[in-house]
Amino acid sequence: MRLLHEQNIEDIALGAAVLGTGGGGDPYIGKVMAREAIRQYGPVELWTLDEFDDDDLIVPSAGIGAPAVLTEKLPSGDDMIHAFKALGKYMGKPPRATMSIEAGGLNSIMPIYVAARLQIPMLDSDGMGRAFPEIQLTIFTTYGISATPLAMADERGNTVIMETIDNYWTERFARSVVGDMGAMGMMALYGATIAQLKEASLPGTITYAEDIGRTVRLARINEESPVDAVREAVGGFLIFTGKITDVDRRIEGGWNLGDCKMEGVDDFAGRNLLLNFQNEHLAVRVDGEFAATVPDLITVLDIDTGEPITTEALRYGMRVAVIAFPCHEKWRTPAGLELANPRYFGYDVDYIPVEERYRS
Amino acid sequence: MRLLHEQNIEDIALGAAVLGTGGGGDPYIGKVMAREAIRQYGPVELWTLDEFDDDDLIVPSAGIGAPAVLTEKLPSGDDMIHAFKALGKYMGKPPRATMSIEAGGLNSIMPIYVAARLQIPMLDSDGMGRAFPEIQLTIFTTYGISATPLAMADERGNTVIMETIDNYWTERFARSVVGDMGAMGMMALYGATIAQLKEASLPGTITYAEDIGRTVRLARINEESPVDAVREAVGGFLIFTGKITDVDRRIEGGWNLGDCKMEGVDDFAGRNLLLNFQNEHLAVRVDGEFAATVPDLITVLDIDTGEPITTEALRYGMRVAVIAFPCHEKWRTPAGLELANPRYFGYDVDYIPVEERYRS
Repeated sequence: MRLLHEQNIEDIALGAAVLGTGGGGDPYIGKVMAREAIRQYGPVELWTLDEFDDDDLIVPSAGIGAPAVLTEKLPSGDDMIHAFKALGKYMGKPPRATMSIEAGGLNSIMPIYVAARLQIPMLDSDGMGRAFPEIQLTIFTTYGISATPLAMADERGNTVIMETIDNYWTERFARSVVGDMGAMGMMALYGATIAQLKEASLPGTITYAEDIGRTVRLARINEESPVDAVREAVGGFLIFTGKITDVDRRIEGGWNLGDCKMEGVDDFAGRNLLLNFQNEHLAVRVDGEFAATVPDLITVLDIDTGEPITTEALRYGMRVAVIAFPCHEKWRTPAGLELANPRYFGYDVDYIPVEERYRS
Repeated sequence: MRLLHEQNIEDIALGAAVLGTGGGGDPYIGKVMAREAIRQYGPVELWTLDEFDDDDLIVPSAGIGAPAVLTEKLPSGDDMIHAFKALGKYMGKPPRATMSIEAGGLNSIMPIYVAARLQIPMLDSDGMGRAFPEIQLTIFTTYGISATPLAMADERGNTVIMETIDNYWTERFARSVVGDMGAMGMMALYGATIAQLKEASLPGTITYAEDIGRTVRLARINEESPVDAVREAVGGFLIFTGKITDVDRRIEGGWNLGDCKMEGVDDFAGRNLLLNFQNEHLAVRVDGEFAATVPDLITVLDIDTGEPITTEALRYGMRVAVIAFPCHEKWRTPAGLELANPRYFGYDVDYIPVEERYRS
């Protein structure tokens, strides 16, 4: 067990936004919410899997929707607490702790907020080691853990609870409901025991995110390249540096969808890049050839500050570095790839691990 | 208390389809389900409001969706029981009885099915005295009764429970979810006590439906005009007899929407009629002038048999009689008209009671 104070949260939010591959929500909003909660309720206890009992119930806390909406519609926080409590009541058993469903600026921080307000621990693990745009796209699913019962709440006071026959149905219903809620809702879901999570989650993701964030912070202080610091921290590849020349985006089906085009600068001068996203970056092509795809991670960083740029913040004229890096090995199992291969997202290409593409 | 046997169900289904104004589901499917349940579990007890205790909890049972889908996707019955039990469990109190939310071929019968299978009484009352295409359009709403907690289930085994801040939000979420469910789901909703229902429901609707159904049956036996029998039984007006020349229909937002055109025959030769529907008949124009609108009732009958024709069964070439009749007085209060006036459905016309239009 260790305590998360404000500086930890700053670092986690930055590192999780790197792992969030453009999605998982704006880190700024999550930070503000978690910071206020910690100021009011004290630091949050981050526990490892081994510090719990095997039959302790853990319930992740997360936002769902089109993150772009957050800039117009701030989560109240009460909605998140409302969803979490509704699920505990429905399950007839109060959760022992909360955790992240995914890495991401908001969705790594939301559990810190819940833990602070409800005075419960947070588990240092998550369900993706990255962010993905659909509920069923978790390592939990590959281990047969049900996303339901799930509780969703909006800031008006509406609550929806569902129990579905599989996690695809959960995604389907939740996506419709979040559309009605104004493209943003808060969820408690994927309740599981520590015994289940010992095999079905990705231990240490929060600490890993914090390490990445700290590395960037120190690089800035030491006037080293924050982009290089990220690349080294994640064991990744610099696949492009360029200037954004076009962003085509739309909010559809409760997601931010779109494409971003870049023209190369420095070593990449004369080359071009196409990035596709659905809340998260899904695939990137350089000069028309795939350079990286899901489930590997693709992150866009401000070329000077190393700050990760979420899909909703991509703007014409920004100078950015694009880094790709390997996903967790659990995504590379047959079950992981069946769930999150490039073809599932509509790309007519087989998954090739990014380190194989860049081995030469 | 009286017992409902098979003959009662036949009459109720027919009469409720008259009151269902084209919606509320196909009476045939409801009859088959209720008949089988009664054969297996015995006749159902129909109780009046006075036979319960004031604090008894009553939970209506109903289908939601586009009734046209029923012809391709039969309700299993298990889904209805599943929804009803899920709501009782969620409320922490088993309902004492069930009732109809609306009159209609399926939705008057579904509670009989639930009562038979769960061996509980059915209350002789309903929430509309007709059928309407949206959840909030009930007399319950005018008395401040919440539609939630609501439980919905589909035939696959999915369940969704919601608690909303008002009955419009219930409609919104439920309509999205039923779209995902394949445009048909089963619901338990509007739980209320007998004390509430004594003022907020329409006592005797089931018996009234049965009386209408019996009248038609006897008219057929006695070789009298079943259309005249219906008109007299409901105190209505024959506003058209004609042949259907065009039906334009679509399934949209989980409803059957459309328009039906007719050319007059007999006394109405040379005239034309336009009927608009959204699951239920909403408005009818004769020679371009409104002849009747919601909340008054508009029913289309087979001209020879008096059989009510649901909106999904309207077909080119059918010879039909159109009857309009006054809605329950509770729809004519300011609260009732605020909820279900013609302008709510997009008609640029004030509500004029049908008997005033036909007074001359």
